[in-house]
Order: sequence, then structure tokens, then C-alpha cells
Amino acid sequence: MQTPSLQSLALPHVARLHAYTPGLQPTEPGWTKLNTNECPYPPSPRVAEAVRRELGQGGESLRLYPNPRSAPLRAAVAALHGLQEENVCIGNGSDDILNLLVRCFCTPAAAAGFTLPSYSLYPVLVGIQDGGSEVIAFDRSMKLPVEQIAASRAKIFFLTSPNAPTGVGFTNAEIEQVLTRYAGVLVVDEAYAPFARGNAVPLLAGHPRLVIVRTLSKAYALAGIRVGYALAHPELIGLLDRVRDSYNVNRLSQAAALAALTDTEYYAGIVARVKATRDRCVADFTAQGWFTYPSEANFIFTEPRNARGETGAAVAKSAYDHLVRHKVLVRYFPSHALTETFLRISVGTDDEMLVLRQNLAAWQKHA
Amino acid sequence: MQTPSLQSLALPHVARLHAYTPGLQPTEPGWTKLNTNECPYPPSPRVAEAVRRELGQGGESLRLYPNPRSAPLRAAVAALHGLQEENVCIGNGSDDILNLLVRCFCTPAAAAGFTLPSYSLYPVLVGIQDGGSEVIAFDRSMKLPVEQIAASRAKIFFLTSPNAPTGVGFTNAEIEQVLTRYAGVLVVDEAYAPFARGNAVPLLAGHPRLVIVRTLSKAYALAGIRVGYALAHPELIGLLDRVRDSYNVNRLSQAAALAALTDTEYYAGIVARVKATRDRCVADFTAQGWFTYPSEANFIFTEPRNARGETGAAVAKSAYDHLVRHKVLVRYFPSHALTETFLRISVGTDDEMLVLRQNLAAWQKHA
Repeated sequence: MQTPSLQSLALPHVARLHAYTPGLQPTEPGWTKLNTNECPYPPSPRVAEAVRRELGQGGESLRLYPNPRSAPLRAAVAALHGLQEENVCIGNGSDDILNLLVRCFCTPAAAAGFTLPSYSLYPVLVGIQDGGSEVIAFDRSMKLPVEQIAASRAKIFFLTSPNAPTGVGFTNAEIEQVLTRYAGVLVVDEAYAPFARGNAVPLLAGHPRLVIVRTLSKAYALAGIRVGYALAHPELIGLLDRVRDSYNVNRLSQAAALAALTDTEYYAGIVARVKATRDRCVADFTAQGWFTYPSEANFIFTEPRNARGETGAAVAKSAYDHLVRHKVLVRYFPSHALTETFLRISVGTDDEMLVLRQNLAAWQKHA
Repeated sequence: MQTPSLQSLALPHVARLHAYTPGLQPTEPGWTKLNTNECPYPPSPRVAEAVRRELGQGGESLRLYPNPRSAPLRAAVAALHGLQEENVCIGNGSDDILNLLVRCFCTPAAAAGFTLPSYSLYPVLVGIQDGGSEVIAFDRSMKLPVEQIAASRAKIFFLTSPNAPTGVGFTNAEIEQVLTRYAGVLVVDEAYAPFARGNAVPLLAGHPRLVIVRTLSKAYALAGIRVGYALAHPELIGLLDRVRDSYNVNRLSQAAALAALTDTEYYAGIVARVKATRDRCVADFTAQGWFTYPSEANFIFTEPRNARGETGAAVAKSAYDHLVRHKVLVRYFPSHALTETFLRISVGTDDEMLVLRQNLAAWQKHA
């Protein structure tokens, strides 16, 4: 008999997929790592205490399945935002939540919409779903294209606010304009909202088609535990729960996240430090004549200028390569005209930002 | 303007879904919990040590993303099975792997096949994918329906071996008969294989369309950390990696799993204890005249008889209800003729099995 190949058995769109490329995670020491928007400070000390408590003497509880709804964590998230438990779904990272949303609303016939640039995972998730997509491009002003989103026929639209990788935040007035005129589900991906001036949570009460997505990876310094969540109308949360893996969040991560959420003082402290470093750094880049978007996130999007004052894709690439040679990792997005002349720099400690700026100064002298 | 409802925006098949019902996880103490096939013994002491090591003093490493490929864990799993790292994909539990397989091979036009009974998650995952399904029923003999599977036009077929919930294992000779004649991808879900007489790993070398799925939830006593894996041809692993979330396994679970896999002596010890308890218990049920499948898993599937020697769905339900009233949790599957007269009992400690048998004896006296 014939034996079909794996490629011919796999769904055609899957056989054509390319995997999402996450930022480099070097395993050897010595790198100044400013490429994946992690927090430069450790998480609340309560996190390690809570994980140790969950472990007990010999990890006895680990033999048992976790709480399938992450129920205590849902309650804590709800309390944090002044919502009810039925407004919350917990994910294995916010990427899990984004994936569930795509699976609930997107097919080849039902498009998902998003802006360009924005979080580069959206098109990957849509591709895995073999979904249609509708892309709305920002221009350099980074003004929210309200009219275009309102007119979109996508069933679901992903808006990163503050935007990645520019760091530009949108106001609730702008988001509400979209909400009242767009007919689909609007996902406001607020991964970076803790570093912003505001957030869209107050809009939830009046808008059942609004979903807010958050993560503990950035402002809670917990990228390593993979916890994120959705805030939305109970009916929408119900849809996510039907598609969600019933044990998607493990015991240790549930314990860690719960502890982190309760330490509001520590959280406020590290967010304030990151913002202070960020604002100084944005001011410095701007003062030296590098165009830099006002950032409401924990990263900076700046357009390097070489010694002759030139900008451009080749200039940004040259700066990026120089930094890599000196073991400083940032992010460079060459695939789009609006981003190819920029570097995205995660906000590190003041010492790390000094290393970065010294290396960029050395580059500029010879570039 | 019109504002469409969430139900009308959601994909029709998602709006119709029912969520998978996991076994009850009582939060109050005092239950004898024999319902979700967890291990009655704690994990290797090395697990808690490894998690504490990953935590360090204050959980500093948790601010960083985990290894996106779980690379050290892939290497350890490969070594354990005498394979290469490119033969391994790590999942957020084996349920994650099963979901990825469905997403790679199943659509409305491309069916997934499975037997009835088997792991009840398969139809749930196929439903989320809006996929076609082909169901092949066992008869009470639980003989593998090789001809029917070989003739299946499903692109992918899930075979639980040892079977759940009966515990019946299939030989490599039978599985190889399927492999040589069935034209699709055969997934042998070996969640319970550590408790069986054999496993299908030796078949991998000759069969690129074979996928073996394992979990650390049962034999490694780590249901709480959510780690499972696939073993397959590198080309198939490549497909899973394209569909997989890039940070699907968190740092603490990676550390825990790695430690558990290295403690082969501890692992062999708890597997041997579970098997000894299981075999005694199967012998006891059989001796008292209850039909009980020979189990190659960490659970027992037995058909209760009441005082008048009767069996049946009502009898099994009566036994189940009696056990719940006395705070003993087992599993009862009333939705299928082959299973509705049975109870599925996870193998606990000898003490727990004594509590179970005393309660069943008390039930039988009055039933």
C-alpha cells in the first residue's frame, strides 16, 4: 500500500507555517539583556515564599492536579480590578488567552484584525488557525486609525495599548470611539498598561464586546511562570473557558501569581523605578536628536542616528549589530517600513541603560 | 447601529461547545480521592530541591522567560528513551500535546479517529477544532479492532494504550499491525504505559507516522506541574513546534520535570508499589466475583455486584453514590453501554484501598 508522507497528512496551512521567533534567550552569562521586555528587578519576595509554601517539605501537593479554574487567582484578579470572578479567565501566559480568543472568533471566513506594527504574535496565531486577517497600518504619527478599525469587518480586532513596539498609548476616549462604532469583539492587549497613564478597565462595564488582556510577565517580573488573564463580560469568559485546556495553569504558577498580586506596594515600587529610568532615557535620546516615541511601556523605541546624522534601516542594523558584538541585546524589526529604522530597547536597571548608552555612543563615533 | 451579540460573533461550533468536565477536585480535607488517577505517593524528593534551586533566594530567575524549547528537558527525555532531542516535544501537560496534534491534522474535512471508550478529552479537542471524527467502538472483549482502524480514513487516530478507562493494554504486535496498514498518523497515548508490561517506543524507529504521548502526571507523581511530551519522527516534532506556544512550559515546571526524570530509582519504586497494590486489588475483586479487566494502568475498572448478584448501570450508580456519601471519590461513566456498569478506581495507597473495599462491602450488604 501507499504510505503518505507526514507533510501530505498535515493540514496544508500547518505544513506551510513558520514558527513564531521569540527574542533570543542567551544561556551563557555576560549579556546585557534588553530584548524581551522582562523586568530588570526580581519579583516580590512573597512569590518565592508562596512557592516554597506550596512545595512544603517534599513537593507532596504536586502529585495532585491544580485547581482547574485557577479559582483563587480569578478571585484575586477580580478584586484587584473591582470586578467579579466571572469577569476573569486565567491563561498559561497572556499568549494562551490570545490563542483562545483566535480560536473562538477566527476562521478562514471570519477574519481577525490587528494593526501594523503591533504584537507580532497575532499573525502567527491567526496563521495556526488558518484564519483570515485584516491588517490596518499605522503611519508614523501613530495616531489610532479609529475610522478604519470602526469600518473593519473582522469579527475580532486586537489592539495593543500601549502599542508594541512603539510604546505609544491610546486614550480611553479613542478606544471608546472604536468600541461604539466597531461591530466586532475588541481586544485591548494591555500587556504594558501598568507602565501607562491609564487603562481601559473602566470601559468594561459599558461594553460587553471589550476584552482586556493582561500579563504578569512584565510589571510583576514573572515572565518565567507564564500567567496572564482576560477581563471581559461573563459570556465572553464562558467562551474562553470552553476552549481552554482544563488544567492550563500549574500549581506553582498559581501560587506564585496569587502572592505577587497581593503585594501591591512592591509592585508599585518596581513600576515607578522602571518608569523613572524610561523617562530619563527617552529624554536623553530625544536631547541627542534621536527621534523617540513617548513611551507608556517598559521599553523605548528610538531611531538611531550615525555620525553623519543619517537614519535608516542600514543605520539601525549597524547599531544593532554593534550592540550584539558588545553583548548588549536589543530588538530590531526589519520587516516593516515603519519599524526598520528603529531599535526597541527594554528598560533595564540604570546601570544596564548606562552600558547601553555607552555602547551606542561608541557605535555612533565610528558609524 | 446594530450591536451584534457575543454568541452571534463567536464561531458557531464554539458557541455550541460544552467544556470538558475534569474529575472532581474537592478542596476540603477528609476525602479518599481515587478519581483522577493521580499517584498516591509524593514525587521524588529531588523535585522540591530542584524547584528551590530554581527559585534561589528570592525567585530572581522568574523575571526571565523560560527556555522556549524546554531544551534541557528535551535532551533528558531523549536520553531516557534512547532517542535524539529532535524526536521530542515538551507540552504543558500531555493534553497540550494532544491539542497540538488535533490542530495539525484535523478539520471539518479531515477527521480524527479514536476508540470508544478511550480518553474522553479527544472528542472535546476535536469539537474545539470543529473537526470531523470517526469513532470505533470496542466490544466487551476489549480486543483491538485492527481491521477497522486500518480501514479508517481519519488523518490521525488516537489510541490510548493502556486503554482508559478499562486499563487493558495492547501489544506491540497488535500496534504494528495497525501501523503497517493504517494510512494516517497513529498516536499511541501512553499516559499509563509506565504501569504496563511494555510500550511502543521500540516501534518509533521503523514508523515515521507513529507518535507516542507521555505524561509526568501519573508515574512521576507530578499532575500539579503540567508536563507531558511527544516522541516522534523529527518532521512530526517540527509540525508540533510550529503550532506550539513558544513559552508553553514555565521555568519551575521545567526544573521539576528535569529532576524527576533523573531519579530513575525513586520512579521505579513508586511504580512497583502502585502495581503491587493494583494487582492485589484486581485479584480481590475477581475473587469476589466482580468482573474486572486485567489492568496495565494505575487504575482498576470493575463491575460491582449487589447483594443479589446483579450488575448494571443502576447497580454501579448505587455503589458510586454510596462511596461519595462516605467521602470516597471514584469515577463513573454512565454515557456508554460498555462503561455504565463499571466503576473506575484509581490505585491509592494500601490504606486507601482498604477504606474503599470496606465501603464497597458495606454498600453490597444493603444494595
